[in-house]
Amino acid sequence: MARRSDHTREELTAIVIDIAELIVASDGLAGLSARKVATEAGYTVGTLYLIFKNIDGLITEVNLKTLKQLEGEISQALQGISKPEKAIAMIARTYLNYATTRSKRWRAVFDHQLPADDVFPEHYHQQVAQLFSLIESPLKLLRPDESQAAIIREARAIWASVHGLAMLSVGEKLNPADAEPIEILDLILNRIIGFDPQGGRK
Amino acid sequence: MARRSDHTREELTAIVIDIAELIVASDGLAGLSARKVATEAGYTVGTLYLIFKNIDGLITEVNLKTLKQLEGEISQALQGISKPEKAIAMIARTYLNYATTRSKRWRAVFDHQLPADDVFPEHYHQQVAQLFSLIESPLKLLRPDESQAAIIREARAIWASVHGLAMLSVGEKLNPADAEPIEILDLILNRIIGFDPQGGRK
Repeated sequence: MARRSDHTREELTAIVIDIAELIVASDGLAGLSARKVATEAGYTVGTLYLIFKNIDGLITEVNLKTLKQLEGEISQALQGISKPEKAIAMIARTYLNYATTRSKRWRAVFDHQLPADDVFPEHYHQQVAQLFSLIESPLKLLRPDESQAAIIREARAIWASVHGLAMLSVGEKLNPADAEPIEILDLILNRIIGFDPQGGRK
Repeated sequence: MARRSDHTREELTAIVIDIAELIVASDGLAGLSARKVATEAGYTVGTLYLIFKNIDGLITEVNLKTLKQLEGEISQALQGISKPEKAIAMIARTYLNYATTRSKRWRAVFDHQLPADDVFPEHYHQQVAQLFSLIESPLKLLRPDESQAAIIREARAIWASVHGLAMLSVGEKLNPADAEPIEILDLILNRIIGFDPQGGRK
């Protein structure tokens, strides 16, 4: 294991976030503790708290990496797609796929609650806004005559629907085991934006 | 405070669930502990574990009461409504309203994760199925020619959308602050079932 003197503060920050990311990805938020991260990094818990104000600061950075990874996957999936309804459907499908295949780290984004006196850093809000904007761009193309307010409302409707479906698919409580999530998704997309799942991928 | 000899096992079970329910409603799942419930009931933690196998058994009963209360509110809201699309819209609106006005106990239903080796009791699954069936009944009236599989798929699509919207409205992370949840809900209902929010309440 590395010793304190081996790393700069920036290096140590990156190492700690990487370790926490792996723990969250395999064991979820419940598996994460400052002690565990510190031990795996080869440092003391005290050193950890020199970098992060509290465990929530570390979780926020892990969740930020999750949101960035999700955005990266969506951007990649969108390459070569020009029709706006196909683009929106691809965003939704990529989101559902991300949530179900990396459910622990995805859930951590929504399970994490900040202490009452804490706030998210500005770059976290920016990342969330960037994710939202992904769906607003093709929606504007699909609805050239709609107001910005109507675009935002519809974008939120799509996000909410897909997010709820992902939640119910990943959770073990209201699991729609008697209907395939992807079929439910296609029904939602068909009704909201007129997406035709048989219409090919471009 | 009551002493052990004052209550039968059934009475004590009800008292303990009621106390846990109040704690969850005001402080959420994070505020609940066996010690806190036992202290408020005037019993020892040991006595609590004579009634419930573990804290998850108690949380499950609290969540069951939440689902029953939600079902009761929906049933009440449906009285006098005959048109199926109005009934579905009323179920959705009542759900969203319940989630936002009693967010802590509502969230507890979805935040609670059973230990890996544990399962929900049969009456819990029945309660969930009963909630799902509420939306399937009017949907069958609305779509008399659809197969049962198509009805279930569409019912899940509506649940998922409304649930996701409730999650995003109650959570503090992806809060659609720039659009009113009820307007987003009406858009979803309009697109999925052709609901007209201006069409009156019956």
